[in-house]
Amino acid sequence: MECFPLLADAHHEFLNKFFHSATLMNIPAAHTIASEGSECGQLALVFSGSVRVYKLAESGREITLYRISSGDSCVLTASCIMSGTPFPAIAETETDVEALIIPSQQAAEWMSEAKPWSAFIFGLISRRLADVITVLENVAFLRMDERIAAYLIAIASQGPVVNITHHEIAADLGSTREVVSRILKGFESKGLVLGARGKITINDLPGLQAYQH
Amino acid sequence: MECFPLLADAHHEFLNKFFHSATLMNIPAAHTIASEGSECGQLALVFSGSVRVYKLAESGREITLYRISSGDSCVLTASCIMSGTPFPAIAETETDVEALIIPSQQAAEWMSEAKPWSAFIFGLISRRLADVITVLENVAFLRMDERIAAYLIAIASQGPVVNITHHEIAADLGSTREVVSRILKGFESKGLVLGARGKITINDLPGLQAYQH
Repeated sequence: MECFPLLADAHHEFLNKFFHSATLMNIPAAHTIASEGSECGQLALVFSGSVRVYKLAESGREITLYRISSGDSCVLTASCIMSGTPFPAIAETETDVEALIIPSQQAAEWMSEAKPWSAFIFGLISRRLADVITVLENVAFLRMDERIAAYLIAIASQGPVVNITHHEIAADLGSTREVVSRILKGFESKGLVLGARGKITINDLPGLQAYQH
Repeated sequence: MECFPLLADAHHEFLNKFFHSATLMNIPAAHTIASEGSECGQLALVFSGSVRVYKLAESGREITLYRISSGDSCVLTASCIMSGTPFPAIAETETDVEALIIPSQQAAEWMSEAKPWSAFIFGLISRRLADVITVLENVAFLRMDERIAAYLIAIASQGPVVNITHHEIAADLGSTREVVSRILKGFESKGLVLGARGKITINDLPGLQAYQH
């Protein structure tokens, strides 16, 4: 429970209601939880694993809006539940996911009844709105080479060798595999990274950081 | 009051609290209400006029996130108040604006106390989140000529002659005046539009619509 401060801090009375309504579910990797235009019948609180929320263009290009991991939930689902509008994106599990499922009627009722719940939902909203605006800002104002440099810097926090394909980078950034491959080849020729099949080694982090301004 | 169903439907008790806390203000055109990184001390409910919320890049390029008009309020301010984070954009009046100002402490308290208030705030959130995601989708997936065509089609609903500069279009779409001018010249040479200083006449709406797919 420690990944949800909501549950640690809540009153006994709310916890009783909460666990009476909630169902624990295991969802396998690569499963589509919600598709564009679907109705949101429930809200998932993720305990473990990762869910990717993305938009898909007619051309087949994708762009990641945000990821949901342990302790988090989906702001788009919350907003659809509150407003009764259909889901405007696609949500897909990237790994096996363990989640608590709350029926949407309860999720909506608790908003006005339970302070810790509405605080939790508002925390979600502010973070996600800021995330989506940052994505928008990057797409609108930065060149693709600057965005790929920033992307590599962000994932380099996991270590200098990252298992990722050009296709996955393209799908996160709203680009095509061809564009990503061309830019990474440019980075390679400058000694910034070293590419192999499904793997990128970051050789020169300061060199990549120089792309950020 | 008819522009805020919130106030029409609310109980007497909430209305008392509401009007006790609210202050009516007139804000002149071209006034910066909130700048990037500022604290949100109050929430404005707009009665008349228009507020533009946008991001500004270091390069000086701008992109409009959304506009706030009669009956509406600012979701970013609401989200900053709830989460105590600084304002992540710029809000500027485009015309003279008349607004009811609510101190942020009240706005936050009413979220858990007053159902019509939390419903109003959630309505804001869902609409704006959808707006911002649509902007993101357009920026990520469409070419600039397609986006300008869509922009002209949207404003053509006001009539075929629109008072707008190339600079204003660029600032809404996150582009530069030069790019907008080059694309509009292309549209002119195809007979789709006719440009004059600070004015665009739309000559061939179906021709512009053909750009949308």
